[in-house]
Amino acid sequence: MTSFPTSLGTSDAESISLLGQDLAHDLMGKVSFGELAFWLLTQRRPTSGEARVFEAVLIGLADHGFTPTAIAARLTYLSAPDAIQGAVAAGLLGGGSRFLGVTEDAGRFLGEALAEAAEVDGALPEIDDAAAWDAIALRAVTRCRDAGRFVPGLGHPVHKTGDPRTPRLIGIARDEGHFGPHLALFEAIGRVHQTVLGKHLPLNGAGVSGAALADLGLPAELLRATVLLARCAGLIGHIAEEMHRPVANSIYLTVDRNARYVAPGQ
Amino acid sequence: MTSFPTSLGTSDAESISLLGQDLAHDLMGKVSFGELAFWLLTQRRPTSGEARVFEAVLIGLADHGFTPTAIAARLTYLSAPDAIQGAVAAGLLGGGSRFLGVTEDAGRFLGEALAEAAEVDGALPEIDDAAAWDAIALRAVTRCRDAGRFVPGLGHPVHKTGDPRTPRLIGIARDEGHFGPHLALFEAIGRVHQTVLGKHLPLNGAGVSGAALADLGLPAELLRATVLLARCAGLIGHIAEEMHRPVANSIYLTVDRNARYVAPGQ
Amino acid sequence: MTSFPTSLGTSDAESISLLGQDLAHDLMGKVSFGELAFWLLTQRRPTSGEARVFEAVLIGLADHGFTPTAIAARLTYLSAPDAIQGAVAAGLLGGGSRFLGVTEDAGRFLGEALAEAAEVDGALPEIDDAAAWDAIALRAVTRCRDAGRFVPGLGHPVHKTGDPRTPRLIGIARDEGHFGPHLALFEAIGRVHQTVLGKHLPLNGAGVSGAALADLGLPAELLRATVLLARCAGLIGHIAEEMHRPVANSIYLTVDRNARYVAPGQ
Amino acid sequence: MTSFPTSLGTSDAESISLLGQDLAHDLMGKVSFGELAFWLLTQRRPTSGEARVFEAVLIGLADHGFTPTAIAARLTYLSAPDAIQGAVAAGLLGGGSRFLGVTEDAGRFLGEALAEAAEVDGALPEIDDAAAWDAIALRAVTRCRDAGRFVPGLGHPVHKTGDPRTPRLIGIARDEGHFGPHLALFEAIGRVHQTVLGKHLPLNGAGVSGAALADLGLPAELLRATVLLARCAGLIGHIAEEMHRPVANSIYLTVDRNARYVAPGQ
Repeated sequence: MTSFPTSLGTSDAESISLLGQDLAHDLMGKVSFGELAFWLLTQRRPTSGEARVFEAVLIGLADHGFTPTAIAARLTYLSAPDAIQGAVAAGLLGGGSRFLGVTEDAGRFLGEALAEAAEVDGALPEIDDAAAWDAIALRAVTRCRDAGRFVPGLGHPVHKTGDPRTPRLIGIARDEGHFGPHLALFEAIGRVHQTVLGKHLPLNGAGVSGAALADLGLPAELLRATVLLARCAGLIGHIAEEMHRPVANSIYLTVDRNARYVAPGQ
Repeated sequence: MTSFPTSLGTSDAESISLLGQDLAHDLMGKVSFGELAFWLLTQRRPTSGEARVFEAVLIGLADHGFTPTAIAARLTYLSAPDAIQGAVAAGLLGGGSRFLGVTEDAGRFLGEALAEAAEVDGALPEIDDAAAWDAIALRAVTRCRDAGRFVPGLGHPVHKTGDPRTPRLIGIARDEGHFGPHLALFEAIGRVHQTVLGKHLPLNGAGVSGAALADLGLPAELLRATVLLARCAGLIGHIAEEMHRPVANSIYLTVDRNARYVAPGQ
Repeated sequence: MTSFPTSLGTSDAESISLLGQDLAHDLMGKVSFGELAFWLLTQRRPTSGEARVFEAVLIGLADHGFTPTAIAARLTYLSAPDAIQGAVAAGLLGGGSRFLGVTEDAGRFLGEALAEAAEVDGALPEIDDAAAWDAIALRAVTRCRDAGRFVPGLGHPVHKTGDPRTPRLIGIARDEGHFGPHLALFEAIGRVHQTVLGKHLPLNGAGVSGAALADLGLPAELLRATVLLARCAGLIGHIAEEMHRPVANSIYLTVDRNARYVAPGQ
Repeated sequence: MTSFPTSLGTSDAESISLLGQDLAHDLMGKVSFGELAFWLLTQRRPTSGEARVFEAVLIGLADHGFTPTAIAARLTYLSAPDAIQGAVAAGLLGGGSRFLGVTEDAGRFLGEALAEAAEVDGALPEIDDAAAWDAIALRAVTRCRDAGRFVPGLGHPVHKTGDPRTPRLIGIARDEGHFGPHLALFEAIGRVHQTVLGKHLPLNGAGVSGAALADLGLPAELLRATVLLARCAGLIGHIAEEMHRPVANSIYLTVDRNARYVAPGQ
C-alpha cells in the first residue's frame, strides 16, 4: 500500500504532534501564531528576530479597507451568511496576479537579479556597499524597461510620495539583523530607478514585503501563501464588521440601481 | 451618495491606518499577528493575557495532518498549481458544520446554558464552586440527551482517553486569568456527563477552544472565523509541503485505480 | 484494499463511459447538456418532457444581472484575471441561504406540506381539485404565519405584481404533463395566502422552480445543486462580459472612494 | 454617478430580460441550456449547428470519474454538507493549468499557429487541402519540440491508442458545417507529429474540444470558462452520488491511516 509522508500533524490516542513537536506542551502557549505559520511554511523554527520580521509583514499586508477582495467577501457573506467559510474563501480567491501578486513578483524579480549578479560578478557586494547595489539595481531596472515591463514593487496608486510601510519594515529587518541582499537591492532600486524611468516612484509595501520575506529565506513560490494568510485575518475582520455594521447590501443596491442596459455584442 | 462605514483599513497619501492605529508605526513590529487578528475580529485590542489564550487556540487548531480539508487543498494544488489561492480556498471550504464546526457549536451551547442558568438561578456561580457548575452541567447534558443530540465538544475519534489540548488550554486560561464561566461549565460537563450518558467521553480540543474563546468575549458567530484563520496556517503548510514532497497525485491514483463501477441508480 | 464505487465516469484504453453509456457514441451529439445534467443528478435519463421543464428552470435561474454573486465574481476576476476558476467559484459561494436558497426552501416546504396532507387526509387530492389544494395551502400558510416564518417562494423585491417566470414555468410543466402536486400546492398558495397574511404577494421564480423540480422527482437536497449549475452559466457570462466591457474596477472605486471611517467598536 | 453597463439580465416590475430577450417568453422552454450558455459567453445566439457542437463539447468534458477535482468536491461535501456551494466551488478551483487547462492551451496554440500561417502564406489553405495543413502542422510541432514544450492536446495517460471523443467531435463538427481551420490543423497535427516527435500520440478530447470551440468563434480566453461549466455538471453529479453512496470518508481514512511521519525539512 502507498504511504503518504508528512511532517505536519500526526496523533495517537495520547498525544498530538505538529512538526515533530508536542502540540499541547511545546507549542500551545509557547510560540506565537505567526511563529508557527513560518514554521509550517518552511519546516524550520524561526529565530525570534525572523519571527518579528515575518509578523511585521503579515500585519502590513492584513488589510487595506475596501479592496476588491474585501468587497467580494462581504457580498458573499450577504448572500450566504450561514457559510462564512465561503465568504473567506471568496475573498482569498482574489489573491491572484493583480492585487496580491506583487509580493511574489518582487521576491522573484529580486532573486533573479541577485542570481545573475552573483554569476556575473562572482559574488554579491557587501551589504552596505551602496554603490555596488546601485549598479546591480541599474542593470535590473534597465532590463525591465527595455522589455516594456513594470518593476515589481515600484509605484502605488495612493502613496505617491512614499509608502510608510517600506521604511518601517526595512528598519525592523535592520534591527533584527535580517537586512539582506534582497532588501539591499530593493532599496537601491528606490535610489536609481528615476535615472532610467524618468520619474520617481515609491517603493511599495507589497514589494518590500517580498524582499524582506526572501531575505528570511522564503522561496518565491511561498510568498503568495504568506500574503494569503495575512489577508485571511483582514477578511475575517471584514466579515465580523459586516455582521454588526453591514454595508454589502448597500454596495449591491448601488451597483444594481445604476446598471445600464447595453444591447448585446456592442 | 451612499457612504460605506468601516473601522478597518484606510489610507491617504502619507499614512495608512488600521483600526484607528498608524499601521506602520503602531502595529508593525509592535503587535503579534495573533493579537492583530483578535483586534480585527472584536475591534478592541486584547490584553497580553487574552492574546496568549487566543494564540494558543489558533495553534491548537492549525493542523491535524491529512484531514479532508488538507487533502482537498493538496488535490486542488495538484490540478491548479499556478493559483495557490484556489488551493487554500478549497481547503477552507471544508470549514463547515462537521469537522470544523464543533468550536462554534460548543461556544453556542455553553453560552445558551449559561444564559439559562443565569435566568433560572438569578446569577452564575462563583468560578470555583464546582458543585454549582456540576448542577448546571447536569441540566445541560440531560437536556441534550433527552433531545437526542450530541453534547458539542464531547468525544474524539482518536483521543479516546483524553485530548491533550484540553487540560493545556484550561491551564493557560487559568494562568492568564481568563478561566471564566464557559470553561468552568465545560470542565463540569467533563465531570458529570458519565452519570447521564452512561459512558466517559473526553472533552475535545475543538470544544475547549470554543469555551476559551467565549470566555475572551468572542460571540459565537465569530468562533468559526477564528478556526478558519487557524486552519489557513495549516493549509499553507500543507501546500508548501506538497511543493517539495508531493502526495496528491498518489492520493488521486489510489482512488482512481480502486474505483469500482456500479450501475446507475443502485 | 478499499474500493470506491461510482456510476459516473469510467474509462479504459479504448472507451469512456458515463452513467453506463458510451460517452462518445451515445451521449455526445445525442443528448443536450441540460439532459445530461439531470441524468447526472438523478442517475436516470429524463424523458424529453422532463428535460424541457428542467432546462426551462435552468434558464429562468441563470442570471439576474448585478446580483451580489455576479458582482463578487467580477471583483474576483479583476483581482485574479489569470485564474477565472476562482472568479466562478467566488460567485457560486454566494449560493447560500439568502439569495439562492429559496428554490430549495420552497421544494422542502411544499414537500413537507404534501407529506403531512397525505398523512392527515389519507391521500393527496386530484391534481385539478382546486378547492382541496386551497385547503392544504391554507393550513400550510397559516402554520408558517403562526411560527413567524416567511412562506418560501412568496414575495419579490422587484416583481411586486407578478414574476413572469411563474406562469410561464407552470405552463411548460402543464404542456409536458409534469404539473404535479408541488406545483398544484404552490399555485394554491398563490390563491389563498392573502386571506391569511392580509396582503397579496407574487409567487416568485425561485419558488416555482423548486416546485417544478420537485414534481420532476428531484429530492430537496439536490435543488440547490440545480440552481448552482444554472448560476454557473450566468457567472461565466458575467466574466466574459467583464473581459470586454469591464465594470469591476469602477465598482471597487465607487466603494473605496465613499468609504467613511468610523472609530472601532462603535 | 457612475453607471454600470451590462447586456445580461435586467428587470422591471413586469418583465425580466436577458441578453435583450424576454426571459419568460423568448428563452424559457424555447432554447436549451447549452444554447443559452453559448449566448451568454459570446453575446450572440448560436445557430442550431453551433449549439449541437457546443453541447457535444460540454458533454465530452463533464466528468471523468474520480479526478482530483471530483475528489476535492466530495471531501469538501463530507466536511461541510450544509454548504454544497462550497463543494462545487472547491471542485471548480482545480480548473487550472494542469488538468483542465488543455482545452484553452490547445485553442490558443492552434490560433497562434493559424495566425502565423496566414501571415506567412498570405492566406489559410482550403479546408480539405490536407497536404497544406500538414505543412503548417509540421512547422508548429517542430517549433514546440525545439522549444522543449509539449504540443497541447497531444497524448493521454489512459487512451494511448486513441481518445474516442476526438473522432466523434470532429464528425459532429463536420456534420454541422463547423469543421474549420482549428480542427483541420489539429487533425493534421495528429497525422504529422510522429515524424517530428518519433512516437505516435493520440489527439485527446480536451484538445479537440479547444479546436472545435475555436472554430465556433470562441476566443481562447473563454475556453476555460466553457470547461468549467461542463465540469460543474459533473461535480453536482458527484455530490449527488456522494449523498446516497458516500466514498469521501473512506478516501479520507485511506489517506490518514497510511500517513507516514517524516522529520521536518527532509
